[in-house]
Amino acid sequence: MIAGAGKVGGLDAADLNYPDHFTAHDPANLAWLLADQGMALNGLAMRYYTDPGFAIGAFTNPDPKTRRDAIDLTKSGLDALAEMGGTLMTLWMGQDGFDYSFQVDYARMWDDTVAAIAEVADHNPALDIAIEYKPNEPRAYALMPDIGTTLLAVKEAGRRNTGVTLDFAHVLYADEMPAHAAHLVARHSRLLGVHLNDGYGKRDDGLMVGSVHPVQTVELFVELDRIGYDGVIYFDTFPDHGGLSPVEEARTNLLMADRLRAVAETLRGNSALAAAIARQDAAISQRIVANALYGKS
Amino acid sequence: MIAGAGKVGGLDAADLNYPDHFTAHDPANLAWLLADQGMALNGLAMRYYTDPGFAIGAFTNPDPKTRRDAIDLTKSGLDALAEMGGTLMTLWMGQDGFDYSFQVDYARMWDDTVAAIAEVADHNPALDIAIEYKPNEPRAYALMPDIGTTLLAVKEAGRRNTGVTLDFAHVLYADEMPAHAAHLVARHSRLLGVHLNDGYGKRDDGLMVGSVHPVQTVELFVELDRIGYDGVIYFDTFPDHGGLSPVEEARTNLLMADRLRAVAETLRGNSALAAAIARQDAAISQRIVANALYGKS
Amino acid sequence: MIAGAGKVGGLDAADLNYPDHFTAHDPANLAWLLADQGMALNGLAMRYYTDPGFAIGAFTNPDPKTRRDAIDLTKSGLDALAEMGGTLMTLWMGQDGFDYSFQVDYARMWDDTVAAIAEVADHNPALDIAIEYKPNEPRAYALMPDIGTTLLAVKEAGRRNTGVTLDFAHVLYADEMPAHAAHLVARHSRLLGVHLNDGYGKRDDGLMVGSVHPVQTVELFVELDRIGYDGVIYFDTFPDHGGLSPVEEARTNLLMADRLRAVAETLRGNSALAAAIARQDAAISQRIVANALYGKS
Amino acid sequence: MIAGAGKVGGLDAADLNYPDHFTAHDPANLAWLLADQGMALNGLAMRYYTDPGFAIGAFTNPDPKTRRDAIDLTKSGLDALAEMGGTLMTLWMGQDGFDYSFQVDYARMWDDTVAAIAEVADHNPALDIAIEYKPNEPRAYALMPDIGTTLLAVKEAGRRNTGVTLDFAHVLYADEMPAHAAHLVARHSRLLGVHLNDGYGKRDDGLMVGSVHPVQTVELFVELDRIGYDGVIYFDTFPDHGGLSPVEEARTNLLMADRLRAVAETLRGNSALAAAIARQDAAISQRIVANALYGKS
Repeated sequence: MIAGAGKVGGLDAADLNYPDHFTAHDPANLAWLLADQGMALNGLAMRYYTDPGFAIGAFTNPDPKTRRDAIDLTKSGLDALAEMGGTLMTLWMGQDGFDYSFQVDYARMWDDTVAAIAEVADHNPALDIAIEYKPNEPRAYALMPDIGTTLLAVKEAGRRNTGVTLDFAHVLYADEMPAHAAHLVARHSRLLGVHLNDGYGKRDDGLMVGSVHPVQTVELFVELDRIGYDGVIYFDTFPDHGGLSPVEEARTNLLMADRLRAVAETLRGNSALAAAIARQDAAISQRIVANALYGKS
Repeated sequence: MIAGAGKVGGLDAADLNYPDHFTAHDPANLAWLLADQGMALNGLAMRYYTDPGFAIGAFTNPDPKTRRDAIDLTKSGLDALAEMGGTLMTLWMGQDGFDYSFQVDYARMWDDTVAAIAEVADHNPALDIAIEYKPNEPRAYALMPDIGTTLLAVKEAGRRNTGVTLDFAHVLYADEMPAHAAHLVARHSRLLGVHLNDGYGKRDDGLMVGSVHPVQTVELFVELDRIGYDGVIYFDTFPDHGGLSPVEEARTNLLMADRLRAVAETLRGNSALAAAIARQDAAISQRIVANALYGKS
Repeated sequence: MIAGAGKVGGLDAADLNYPDHFTAHDPANLAWLLADQGMALNGLAMRYYTDPGFAIGAFTNPDPKTRRDAIDLTKSGLDALAEMGGTLMTLWMGQDGFDYSFQVDYARMWDDTVAAIAEVADHNPALDIAIEYKPNEPRAYALMPDIGTTLLAVKEAGRRNTGVTLDFAHVLYADEMPAHAAHLVARHSRLLGVHLNDGYGKRDDGLMVGSVHPVQTVELFVELDRIGYDGVIYFDTFPDHGGLSPVEEARTNLLMADRLRAVAETLRGNSALAAAIARQDAAISQRIVANALYGKS
Repeated sequence: MIAGAGKVGGLDAADLNYPDHFTAHDPANLAWLLADQGMALNGLAMRYYTDPGFAIGAFTNPDPKTRRDAIDLTKSGLDALAEMGGTLMTLWMGQDGFDYSFQVDYARMWDDTVAAIAEVADHNPALDIAIEYKPNEPRAYALMPDIGTTLLAVKEAGRRNTGVTLDFAHVLYADEMPAHAAHLVARHSRLLGVHLNDGYGKRDDGLMVGSVHPVQTVELFVELDRIGYDGVIYFDTFPDHGGLSPVEEARTNLLMADRLRAVAETLRGNSALAAAIARQDAAISQRIVANALYGKS
């Protein structure tokens, strides 16, 4: 898989999943495989669904022992991350949710989530912990489905080495405008990661960058520049869904992201655009952005 | 209002609503006002919501007299249309739906709808009747919310002078890909009108053309060309929602539609694109379309 | 209208809209009309959409003078509320949002919202200010579309006399479970109002209580009891949408709310239910709730 | 698995998946295992996703050989069905869709689908072929996402031994009222199967029967009775999502389905309900249904 990523050309960092990617290789070995392809480790992402015991919760599991296992597994992941020289751990708490009314104790789940975030953050304050939200799946409702609830939990945990990762398709699915979500993160916490992709906002489509929402993607790049985000742009797309070649699909992602980021740069300091936005004049701002995207008409 | 449309420059046809726009002016007078601005009449659109009696149905109203009023009002509208020299009547049956389980008799409503479509079509076979669907509003569920049910009803009515009008934002809201919907219409009925706009697919946003889904708009233009659609492209957008100047908003619509239609034309006969589509290779087709939209990278 | 509400029987409080309901009557006169029907004033709700100038924003309007008008109008509403002896002002900031990428300055809008909430809260600390959220409408995106963002803003405003009003259909539309939203309010702020109704979660349906989600309504009642909510239950339904008699529709709302609240009371202290929830055993909890709702099978 | 279903008590029929469930057992052996648990074979359901070649289509695969494999596999499944003495084959064409604009040739896909339905129907006219629709997954858009498009395709195929299977959660996800969808099937084709479950309408939740939409479930039972459906009610729920015991979950499904079906039977011939529905008076019809569900208030 790492060799395949190396073939794309232009990919300079990768994320690995813990514990799945570590069953056949130890951290040192994986670090060497990445370096051999000229790639840096962006970070690790926890995957709790590899353990059937976590089906009804990782940090919120009603069984104290299973909850403890989830926290300990996360700490092991943090240790592997440190051993590989990485600094970013991404947590997607997909199992921490509910399917039915009268299935869970909301107060207990929230307490358990906040306490667990604080505990894993304290395990190694040199490492950053990013919460990546998504409205649902596998549970019908996630406990932290959107930017607002995620920020409430992160603020309540109160640890400096915590923050948020935005996944473009998750943000659309949560009925949020990506640039607005990025602004809220920067205001209330720290933006630690950006997963770029696209979708139709009805589920987590994981489509290629810019294939549906190029204007919204450009606006996100403008906002990332404004808030000074200098982290990695990670392509979280699902080539297998459409039977695409992963290498060709990654190349299209790179081309599109470079192109849309370049458009965003041309808009920086555009005073006519700033003036139109200042008076909420979308008829004019859409024309300015269209000229930047498609060339003068 | 007509004078305002004339100011935009580039708008060469308009739709009028019946009966609202006919309360202060008679058909001959309205025809003269349009001609004075150099605009043709595209057609009329029925508006049943001006009568509170239609709140629980126009063609499907449970009261036979009110249902008869709705049919007769439509016939009056058709007469006004003929008097003005137009040929297209658009019906959006927003009141013909339901809000609750155990509120309506689905079989009776379907029968009433099909019979009414046939009756108004027979009133003047020289005029075309287009059904414009929308998932809901004002009723929680429309009886014909999407392309499939609309085509079933139109086919059951079995009149040659009937067909479908697609509204881009309604199509997105119905979770449909616009080009796919256009193909289905051409295959099973006649495409009589296209309302262009944009939206996020979560409601009937009525946004400016191309502001969210430029690639899907280009694909629709390609499909319209393939099926030989030569009707009017009507901008059904809501400038007042965002406090926009209707004239400036219409100009942006025109610029965007011209631009995206021109892109669609450059894709006609592109054999590399046809080959990628023939093997469902979206990684390649997205690059070709991106080059056509944004310029070679 | 007030006389109609009096006819229902069982309605003991009402909300009035400011300024619409105050154009023909002054506060003292309206207080007398309510008292004459044996009804108390629950509170007032601001309606900014009566002024076309607020189309692109009330608290966030880009024009400083219009923004000031919105704040001053709210203060006038608070004065009318005090004069009538009420204590609750509900704010639904439907105009404070955006329709397009590159239409607004998210940071400025958030600042303006938080500052305005603080300013109107300080106008009369004896009155409570409740923010009622809704995902969109009239704008395509609200600035505070859901429980998370609303709580972030209320906490940032930092005034004790502020809180949140939950509208059941808005909560469903925001993809939230009502009891979970109620818990989050109680944890992070104050629950000041509950608008009961129902819907399908795809738009703001405003249907009769319990017509779609009776189990979720019962769970909300259980949660309201747990968090000690003792405010008014307000029926925010739209009888005109389905052509219903407002009086009969209100009676059905009352019957359903009483019935579902009674079911909630029988579940209080049910140890088998508490045990099933403690282990997330929905197969058992659903049976217990079904027995309470429908009678033993 | 079959032994587990036998333990539930009350389950008298089962569906098997082809080819997955036939890799370790031949048809005769599986028929014996079912009989041993006192269960009949309801039918088989094709599962094309077991073959990675079908990722971009089964009946619509752009590679003619892969498309032929999908048709031949279906015919093998039909042979296994006949060998076991069953009569119903359910097809869920989840791979037959698209993810992107400019990915597919809609006309070719529709042709291929209709031709394949006709061909597999002709393979053994004694067996029934049911199409089960779903809006998406794994593809972002299904070619036949809803009741309308499914009926258009089935009617175009024109074979008497074809029809439709309704899955309650899929129907909700497609923004359809289940009883309305059932009526449309009975009017335009044949209802061959009903998969009962529940959900929130935002994805294919697969929750326990009646846990969210009991009123809509009762209405569906009333409609099934009206159209004379005498087929199997199949529980298509996902106990593993919420970590539930499959046996206890199936028992709750049975209890709820029996209870809601009994309520539907008490509503048969209720003349007050019929009268309220005849005038679309939901305020009254909701009270009548509530009394039937919850007991007189």
